[in-house]
Amino acid sequence: MAAKIFVSSLFLSLLLLASSTTHTTKKIRAHSPCKRLTFYFHDIIYNGKNSKNATSAIVGAPAWGNRTLLAGQSHFGDLVVFDDPITLDNNLHSPAIGRAQGFYIYDKKEIFTSWLAFSFVFYSGEHNGSINFAGADPLMNKTRDVSVIGGTGDFFMTRGVATLMTDAFEGEVYFRLRVDIKLYECW
Amino acid sequence: MAAKIFVSSLFLSLLLLASSTTHTTKKIRAHSPCKRLTFYFHDIIYNGKNSKNATSAIVGAPAWGNRTLLAGQSHFGDLVVFDDPITLDNNLHSPAIGRAQGFYIYDKKEIFTSWLAFSFVFYSGEHNGSINFAGADPLMNKTRDVSVIGGTGDFFMTRGVATLMTDAFEGEVYFRLRVDIKLYECW
Amino acid sequence: MAAKIFVSSLFLSLLLLASSTTHTTKKIRAHSPCKRLTFYFHDIIYNGKNSKNATSAIVGAPAWGNRTLLAGQSHFGDLVVFDDPITLDNNLHSPAIGRAQGFYIYDKKEIFTSWLAFSFVFYSGEHNGSINFAGADPLMNKTRDVSVIGGTGDFFMTRGVATLMTDAFEGEVYFRLRVDIKLYECW
Repeated sequence: MAAKIFVSSLFLSLLLLASSTTHTTKKIRAHSPCKRLTFYFHDIIYNGKNSKNATSAIVGAPAWGNRTLLAGQSHFGDLVVFDDPITLDNNLHSPAIGRAQGFYIYDKKEIFTSWLAFSFVFYSGEHNGSINFAGADPLMNKTRDVSVIGGTGDFFMTRGVATLMTDAFEGEVYFRLRVDIKLYECW
Repeated sequence: MAAKIFVSSLFLSLLLLASSTTHTTKKIRAHSPCKRLTFYFHDIIYNGKNSKNATSAIVGAPAWGNRTLLAGQSHFGDLVVFDDPITLDNNLHSPAIGRAQGFYIYDKKEIFTSWLAFSFVFYSGEHNGSINFAGADPLMNKTRDVSVIGGTGDFFMTRGVATLMTDAFEGEVYFRLRVDIKLYECW
Repeated sequence: MAAKIFVSSLFLSLLLLASSTTHTTKKIRAHSPCKRLTFYFHDIIYNGKNSKNATSAIVGAPAWGNRTLLAGQSHFGDLVVFDDPITLDNNLHSPAIGRAQGFYIYDKKEIFTSWLAFSFVFYSGEHNGSINFAGADPLMNKTRDVSVIGGTGDFFMTRGVATLMTDAFEGEVYFRLRVDIKLYECW
């Protein structure tokens, strides 16, 4: 009988060990986000004529560029600051639930690719606070992953990965991005 | 007797399970920073006349702006690089214990709001190493939270939230910020 | 006998408690990276004459600077966008296993120091995905630590510290950096 008890106790303890390992091994959490969100944001680049509607502007450019037209050589070196509306669907005229604020740079001469750092600043409805992003955006790829490097408010201390997709574009003035945010650290 | 032992063992095991969960749930750590620090930093923007005292300079601007005067439309698009002294109190002339180095952009046409990424680089006294920050700074708000995205030296691998407050300003040349740093991951 | 069993059970439980604490205390992980990688990257700044070979370009500069020559006052305010080849050894002509893409700013008037944010984008061979970096780079120091703030693909959700060393430079056009990446969070 006593031996049986010992075995029970051992079994329980081993079970616990497994459980404790499960909780602390990050590998497992990686496979299921603690929060998942999808949004769209809309970028209208200032071109010298659309002052009223523009949501972004070129503020840095290489020696061969200027600030009202994306530069040659795949826009290499252009730096764009943006304040883009965030919507729940793909309609530019849907109510904005926040703003995507930050900048991107075009950073390759041979093909279009960019690097961006920005925040989603939510101010109404379901979400409050901000999510901060940074990473490479090889925009000719169908999907691109950037890092969620932090957050505040509802998104306090969060981390994760955001998948960007170009949902639509018109010439070199309007770009619509779909963002699928997967958070793996939720506090 | 044997049953009693089994119960004791079970009880202990459940206790352990609870304890292990406590240790791994981030929710709990969120409520008490592992480190808390308060500093001030001082930004003097170059305006064409204050070369000697300036600690920052406009290096990018939209088509309608220039580099010795913050642009119209709420300075939208201005990009400022800074190397600001960090002090323990709100006196610009107190000994600097490090430098706040990085950049900010003004990123909205309608109101003053910015986005910043920078480091606190400590080089003397109590603190050595660096803390890295990024996030949106809606500077008309009394307090704004940005993310602590990493650190080195004494602040190895740290994460947290920093609350910015505009402590004083003079025209559009001098800005003093108070920063309340709350670290929730300390290695 | 029963008492002995109780003791055994208690002992096992305490052992478990210790084990669970070990797993969740970050202090311990800090001393041994879960992954360590060393690379070189090569930066050739556009100077108006090297259009074909240049891998980077000045795109922002202070009022006293321009975009084909690094500015006076320790290049303070110069903002450089780059797309630099990453190699396994220190030879610029070795096969590139990815690109270092992002930007740096010179951010001090008195000495050469910079701040940078960039990604390593791997596209071939052993590594796929990206690693994102940010931090202060006081480049006159022999070694400088910046933060690894996130990653994607093979480097999903990673964090760590990267040590930069200037391996070689030629005038103010070519810079070769050695990067020793130590990851302390591997998912």
